[in-house]
Amino acid sequence: MKIAVLGAGMIGRTIAKDLAKKHEVISVDKDARSLENLENIKGITTLKTNLSSFSTYKKILEDCDLCVCAVPGFLGYDALESIIKTGTNVVDISFSRENTMELDALAKKHNVTAVIDCGVAPGMSNIILGYYNSIMEVESFECLVGGLPKERKPPFEYKAPFSPIDVIEEYTRPARIKENGEIVVKPALSEAELIEFKEVGTLESFNTDGLRTVLHTMPHIKNMKEKTLRYPGHISLITALIQAGFLNDDKIMVDGSAISRKDFTCKVLFDQWRLNPDDEEFTLMQIVIKGKKDGKQMEVEYFLYDEYDKKNRISSMSRTTAFTATAVAELVLNKKINAKGIIPPEIVGSEEEAFKFILRYLKDRDVNYKATIN
Amino acid sequence: MKIAVLGAGMIGRTIAKDLAKKHEVISVDKDARSLENLENIKGITTLKTNLSSFSTYKKILEDCDLCVCAVPGFLGYDALESIIKTGTNVVDISFSRENTMELDALAKKHNVTAVIDCGVAPGMSNIILGYYNSIMEVESFECLVGGLPKERKPPFEYKAPFSPIDVIEEYTRPARIKENGEIVVKPALSEAELIEFKEVGTLESFNTDGLRTVLHTMPHIKNMKEKTLRYPGHISLITALIQAGFLNDDKIMVDGSAISRKDFTCKVLFDQWRLNPDDEEFTLMQIVIKGKKDGKQMEVEYFLYDEYDKKNRISSMSRTTAFTATAVAELVLNKKINAKGIIPPEIVGSEEEAFKFILRYLKDRDVNYKATIN
Repeated sequence: MKIAVLGAGMIGRTIAKDLAKKHEVISVDKDARSLENLENIKGITTLKTNLSSFSTYKKILEDCDLCVCAVPGFLGYDALESIIKTGTNVVDISFSRENTMELDALAKKHNVTAVIDCGVAPGMSNIILGYYNSIMEVESFECLVGGLPKERKPPFEYKAPFSPIDVIEEYTRPARIKENGEIVVKPALSEAELIEFKEVGTLESFNTDGLRTVLHTMPHIKNMKEKTLRYPGHISLITALIQAGFLNDDKIMVDGSAISRKDFTCKVLFDQWRLNPDDEEFTLMQIVIKGKKDGKQMEVEYFLYDEYDKKNRISSMSRTTAFTATAVAELVLNKKINAKGIIPPEIVGSEEEAFKFILRYLKDRDVNYKATIN
Repeated sequence: MKIAVLGAGMIGRTIAKDLAKKHEVISVDKDARSLENLENIKGITTLKTNLSSFSTYKKILEDCDLCVCAVPGFLGYDALESIIKTGTNVVDISFSRENTMELDALAKKHNVTAVIDCGVAPGMSNIILGYYNSIMEVESFECLVGGLPKERKPPFEYKAPFSPIDVIEEYTRPARIKENGEIVVKPALSEAELIEFKEVGTLESFNTDGLRTVLHTMPHIKNMKEKTLRYPGHISLITALIQAGFLNDDKIMVDGSAISRKDFTCKVLFDQWRLNPDDEEFTLMQIVIKGKKDGKQMEVEYFLYDEYDKKNRISSMSRTTAFTATAVAELVLNKKINAKGIIPPEIVGSEEEAFKFILRYLKDRDVNYKATIN
């Protein structure tokens, strides 16, 4: 099969390499240096082009059986729309601020299967919830998730492969939570709690707006929340920067120039937060689903602790995100997902065969979810 | 007597008003708005002139019996030098980064008595140490001091009448401490400790480079330290800003302009830290002197807790600083301090009559130091 992978960033490259083991892959990016890492890999051809030129998508995708989209957040929505218009099935891991469900009618019109949010969270968190929702009566869902560097460099003790502006966006967007059957909006960064993990020690969790599609696809679940994990102190420092006005949208006069406070601060954070290719990091996710099965209380816990792969030099964030997307890509290619329209991952997980395939696919790549069921 | 008060900032104005009760005062500043506050006050005439023009000092001071200098830190050293060259006795409260003791020979040459550092700390802390050093064998000296707003506005919980750049300078200059007979240099902001005060609750103390002249005038005292007081959390936030590079001296490109990180950050801090005229604040100082008198252990504690004067709308920082300076001004005018050269305040305090005069003068103005001697 022939697959186009749009975006050759840290995660896009890992997707391309994984798919190239079985398929013919064309990897597309505007950055020649990103593509360099993929040259001379069997099964991969590279194409240097600017993915903001949406008119080129038709040509790029014309003989592809599938597209995997791994572009930066600011391109996410428009890229997905452009892929759908070419009539190509797509598996998407790009973050969009916009509601991608709005493209559902367009995808149906073009007879396209577009599986969105195929990363870790959103992604595996939805897939797991989707499966258990299909076999039990779910009353509550809680997901704690974070990707963190092993080295705790003060003051932020945080690194990320994304632009700080995307992280700041996550830290400033109010969080939608489900409580007692109602969607409630909590302030960004609220309800910070310390939690012990034997793998990494104490982390701090706080509300983020991560539930997204499940708020709408699972209206019967009375309590749902997603919280992000950071090392303790990170959030109080971000809160302080916000309170002090470092992240305001206005401009102030400095040295005779009008300077955006947020632009300045993101520039400083860029150096502080940059994840370098060989920085060791980990991904930690803990999902707890409570409810009833056959009239009896049941509690399901899924736990992921995954580290940077030293041997192959692949970050945990790449592994956990990319392999979820490639597992779903296999399902689409093998016609195991046939519905048309925008398909959130909880719908994929609701099919037992698909759910088990994804877990096995990840396990084969040493991404191990540990399930505990009581 | 005729006295020139250079600088009509918050503290300079309080000095001028206090001295005008008994003397003829000329208050000098480049800022017409600062001088406005002093117009129509009996005994005060105002003069709008730029105090960076040092050549004007001769004319300003020509028939003055004394000068009190209350200019911003960046002008401090040059202003003092210029005053000395006119042959006028001077009481100085301006902070200088430079070592003003270097002007000693010049002051002697011009037959000038120049009492420096006449505020709270440096100032009263030196005067108190000077007195006890003259009557006992001092083994250790510790001074904790801070001026803080009553309203604890996050994230900094701090306000000051100075420019943030002067405060940042204090936070980044390594602190010289005396330990076991040696001068040791500790990092700025080091050795943060929480301390309870019944008046204001828990504060945090940390090393600052405040000992200044006593490091040299009191070489026999084996242990000396000065620590600054802030609300808990302030220092860790400043430390984080330093660690993250917000206070670096380099420039970074933002929105197409090369911007000094420190300039940007000080601009943000300016809004956060500005002390408005009616903001309630307090000054707290605790001095502990230990040693021997007549062969027996003796411990002396001086404690100051002083608040914003609501009735007269004078900040505590102005009251405690200005009235120390005006007390010393009276001593100079009344020929109770006759030595020529640069006179640090510990020398003033070493004379019992002067020490008692200053304490009484402050008490008359409701600035009350509580002494406990064991």
